[in-house]
Amino acid sequence: MSIQFQIDATRGSARLGTLITPHAVVETPIFMPVGTLGSVKGVPQDLLEELRVQILLGNTYHLYLRPGVETVRRLGGLHGFMAWDRAILTDSGGFQVFSLNELRKVTEEGVTFRSHLDGSSHFFSPESSMEAQIGLGADIIMAFDECTEFPADRERMRTSMEMTARWAERSKEYFEEHKNEVPWKTVSSFEFQVSSGGADARNSKPETRNLDRTQSLFGIVQGGMDLELRKESALRTVEIGFPGYAIGGLSVGEPREVTREVVEATLEYLPADQPRYLMGVGTPEEIATYAGMGVDMMDCVLPTRAARHGLLFTSEGKVSIKQARYAADPGPLDPACGCRVCRRYSRAYLRHLYAANEVLAQVLNTVHNLSFYLDTMRRVRHSIRLGEGTRSPSGVSSQPKP
Amino acid sequence: MSIQFQIDATRGSARLGTLITPHAVVETPIFMPVGTLGSVKGVPQDLLEELRVQILLGNTYHLYLRPGVETVRRLGGLHGFMAWDRAILTDSGGFQVFSLNELRKVTEEGVTFRSHLDGSSHFFSPESSMEAQIGLGADIIMAFDECTEFPADRERMRTSMEMTARWAERSKEYFEEHKNEVPWKTVSSFEFQVSSGGADARNSKPETRNLDRTQSLFGIVQGGMDLELRKESALRTVEIGFPGYAIGGLSVGEPREVTREVVEATLEYLPADQPRYLMGVGTPEEIATYAGMGVDMMDCVLPTRAARHGLLFTSEGKVSIKQARYAADPGPLDPACGCRVCRRYSRAYLRHLYAANEVLAQVLNTVHNLSFYLDTMRRVRHSIRLGEGTRSPSGVSSQPKP
Repeated sequence: MSIQFQIDATRGSARLGTLITPHAVVETPIFMPVGTLGSVKGVPQDLLEELRVQILLGNTYHLYLRPGVETVRRLGGLHGFMAWDRAILTDSGGFQVFSLNELRKVTEEGVTFRSHLDGSSHFFSPESSMEAQIGLGADIIMAFDECTEFPADRERMRTSMEMTARWAERSKEYFEEHKNEVPWKTVSSFEFQVSSGGADARNSKPETRNLDRTQSLFGIVQGGMDLELRKESALRTVEIGFPGYAIGGLSVGEPREVTREVVEATLEYLPADQPRYLMGVGTPEEIATYAGMGVDMMDCVLPTRAARHGLLFTSEGKVSIKQARYAADPGPLDPACGCRVCRRYSRAYLRHLYAANEVLAQVLNTVHNLSFYLDTMRRVRHSIRLGEGTRSPSGVSSQPKP
Repeated sequence: MSIQFQIDATRGSARLGTLITPHAVVETPIFMPVGTLGSVKGVPQDLLEELRVQILLGNTYHLYLRPGVETVRRLGGLHGFMAWDRAILTDSGGFQVFSLNELRKVTEEGVTFRSHLDGSSHFFSPESSMEAQIGLGADIIMAFDECTEFPADRERMRTSMEMTARWAERSKEYFEEHKNEVPWKTVSSFEFQVSSGGADARNSKPETRNLDRTQSLFGIVQGGMDLELRKESALRTVEIGFPGYAIGGLSVGEPREVTREVVEATLEYLPADQPRYLMGVGTPEEIATYAGMGVDMMDCVLPTRAARHGLLFTSEGKVSIKQARYAADPGPLDPACGCRVCRRYSRAYLRHLYAANEVLAQVLNTVHNLSFYLDTMRRVRHSIRLGEGTRSPSGVSSQPKP
């Protein structure tokens, strides 16, 4: 068994779960911070550990371009490279190849695209994406899919969904044949590196880590905004058979009520006893809402990206820290937040750092936003445990602070 | 008594000292990291505490422009504003007013200059500099001086030196009259803020902090590169009388042997029982050398600025981390360094972060360089304590790594 997933409690559609991966035990529903290029921008790994991040996400497209898969593989995969010994999930590169590249050519074989960095030409296919993700060595990897553009007509959504299903088969085939090449099984220096880094990683007790396990490959459901196509995609993906399933191709510009509709419809056809991962969402209210609907895993750049723009989520609403009203405010950013930033610094100081374009602004803002997101999910899990609802948990609002 | 300074041991000209300031006990010789705008760029205050930074420097010119002295004063001075409860030293603004501003008009009264940010017009004088520095509330503040340009003819060096002496008198006069307005004596929220921030600041034991003390104003010796003028400036500044003395106007483009010559000549005329502060130096070898000559305090942007350019000081020489040779190097940056960065991350990872323009590069590089500088001074202090020489301590080299 590569991963194990068990449901410990339910409330309505929501599930409190335990996801055992090779590198960490992850409590679900979980929010995964995005560490695009092998770094959650500005936040050192020990701060992530302090925030109790159990699993983070790396982007295969970006890491493939730099530093390159081989470099990472030789350093023991992403775990060795980043000196991160908790869990990692990588996406397949499918999304960036479509979202970052105007000039691309899609065939049944795969996608030819140009690097957004230097225009050089590259090719991604299910096989090469698996090869890259195996080399990067994340605990959970994703099938190579086609993220259907939005909007799209029904014909296009169907064609795209069907190719994703064929690509899912090819992803799985390649993966099953090569999964034992994962660096933590093959790169001898790996154990040494991990134990020399992050020495007090709380989740590294022998009984929670098992590197005899291989990676796990999750399938991705597509089908655009068409509920019938989504059902078909879900059934076909489940038929191929994966240890977990993601809902892709959402949060691409569609109205939020459509997102919810598609998620609800799709979840109906995904196995209840396996993890369900909704990719690329959301605001604090949204992640609580989707958890309430039965989603187990989510990722989004929003907390980290908003932080870099000085947009901070708090229990009193969204704060745009650059505003002049905070320039002399001695209070903490969020009186209800226990993160390092709120315990130590004033709004005036945070506002000054942002206005002065200080790097520390990005670091502190990101630490707070991640703390807020992770606390939000902790409260959701707590609610499920206690048998309460998870909709609109107290104190969560993405609305601007009045 | 505002500060207390005692010499605990000597070796040749070097002195091991204890400088007791209102907010912290500082062991000398000491290197002070520069936190220009109230932040040591990219490094959160708790990391500075972990690095055992006892005292850091803030730039009055920059803070005066943003966020402005009044904002800082209302937040309890720089200590409250930055949530830093160890020691702080501010410079007078004299240097930046000369180095950052082409358009400036100098009269006996003071200097009219334009903000480098938005071109607005401002005026600094000994009195206004003191007012600003009192409002910022650092433990040690500096007389408002004229930093003589380099090169300069003897006539110019003399005129400049003499004006600095007259400005030193005015600085002291204003300071003595207004020093009780320091925020930690007058801003009632101050104690609350400090105790709510940095709760485990190791240097905050009641017996080491004494906020009944006022700030201390140090005088600055000028005189360009002329040894006679330097002597005269030293004698005149000592005659005015300050609890500590700085040597300013060096590291302005003169050859290093001239710097040493001037420092040596000037130290001869500064009281042995008071702290001597050499402003704006240097490389790791230089700070060790100057400590050996009897300098007690130094500051420089070099470790932090070099870090941002990927130039890292190590026991094996200077490392330019962007170089391709490090792209797959699994070893630590500096095998002899015990900082968080060297204990956890590989050169390959640091190189990747820098090449990918990741913010974490700046954070980690700065943490390491500061650790290297602070370790260098710790070794110097240890050498003095043990009665060894301080010249070229083992492992310190600014030369590029072979």
